[in-house]
Amino acid sequence: MYPTSSANQARPFLTWQRISDWAQEHYRCRTFVKDERIPSRPGLLYLVQRGAVRLTGSAQLGVNVSTDEEESPSTPLMAQDEEAFLGFVGPGQPFEIIAQSPFSLQSFAHVDQTAVIWLYWHDLDNWPHFRREVLEAFRHQHQRKLLWLSTLGQRRTIDRLIGFLTLLIEEFGETSPEGYYLPFPLTHAQIGSAIGSTRVTVTRLMGKLRQQGILATHGDGLICLPGHSDLPLSKEA
Amino acid sequence: MYPTSSANQARPFLTWQRISDWAQEHYRCRTFVKDERIPSRPGLLYLVQRGAVRLTGSAQLGVNVSTDEEESPSTPLMAQDEEAFLGFVGPGQPFEIIAQSPFSLQSFAHVDQTAVIWLYWHDLDNWPHFRREVLEAFRHQHQRKLLWLSTLGQRRTIDRLIGFLTLLIEEFGETSPEGYYLPFPLTHAQIGSAIGSTRVTVTRLMGKLRQQGILATHGDGLICLPGHSDLPLSKEA
Repeated sequence: MYPTSSANQARPFLTWQRISDWAQEHYRCRTFVKDERIPSRPGLLYLVQRGAVRLTGSAQLGVNVSTDEEESPSTPLMAQDEEAFLGFVGPGQPFEIIAQSPFSLQSFAHVDQTAVIWLYWHDLDNWPHFRREVLEAFRHQHQRKLLWLSTLGQRRTIDRLIGFLTLLIEEFGETSPEGYYLPFPLTHAQIGSAIGSTRVTVTRLMGKLRQQGILATHGDGLICLPGHSDLPLSKEA
Repeated sequence: MYPTSSANQARPFLTWQRISDWAQEHYRCRTFVKDERIPSRPGLLYLVQRGAVRLTGSAQLGVNVSTDEEESPSTPLMAQDEEAFLGFVGPGQPFEIIAQSPFSLQSFAHVDQTAVIWLYWHDLDNWPHFRREVLEAFRHQHQRKLLWLSTLGQRRTIDRLIGFLTLLIEEFGETSPEGYYLPFPLTHAQIGSAIGSTRVTVTRLMGKLRQQGILATHGDGLICLPGHSDLPLSKEA
């Protein structure tokens, strides 16, 4: 059972069409172009209707710690605008933006024609079944994040890189003759921001993985896991 | 509003006492000693009744990538038993263990006298309100994990360390005259496993943070964030 995405996408929420119609009628739907920021407020619930949303987070701890590690101790040592890639939200999936200083979460349309619906939680009072589906979706997303954290705990950057890419492709990948590929681009800087590394290191390690046939490229630079039997991840349950 | 834990702990699930009684009657409750593994199966739901549970995950990708990075290329390069600390689950909180090869999640009693209840999801059919509370708890845990991922995306180990400790203490911390402290021990190896670093590096960096007054020690080696006004994290919402 690999990847899981097509199954997920084929099972939209049962009341999806009604929500979609309701959103249209109440002007609660908007379409975004690639990389456009999706204005979002804490306390609201967002649903991806079409396309893909990219979540990012940044931490601004405001603590200056002198360290001789990676930068000169005379510069302000917290990167103020380090933005971490936190994952995608695909069609039919909910997301929400929480505000908790000093962390700042943001959402962007990852591809053109990304459409997003927004609701208040109390809008769901009329659709208790749908609310439960939304909560079940967050439960599922939480499970995925635990796997993600499992791979990010690995010490070696290359292990984190392989684990991260495999999890992403497992969740969002599509099939091709060469294997499973991520259907939208992801920059090396974005990958680095997710795994605590740099664009330069990611570029170097991905070159290495390509040389060894662990990664491939599909079409116009899309990341692909070759589809032979000993895939890094194969789903059990 | 800092830290949040006391508020959470003061608001147990509304039907908590009934669930607790039911678990007792049906032999669905067990008490564990510190660091004892909690046997757990996918598909079951677990509730922490008392104490604290530690979740860990390991990734065994089974891919040997030759790299000149951190180890000699002649050794098997995936650490086979690298176990990442994925967080705590406190009293009144649910958790579940998902099985997805090659990731393996496990749960341990983090302190003595940790009591855990287990249920099948369909056991909750009689308590729909409680099921919703459980799902809301997972939604909340998911939000915390997004913040956690935000801090792990930071490139510098010391930034990840501060962010990680602050998030943990914010969620589970207790107050003392010196500030907010984590009420149970956490080893440097466990911290390293969460932030993609090593015990040695964590020890070195924590020494540095102590010297600079950013961290302190409470009682018998418990990690403490001094409680002056410019805490690294101060909650907004």
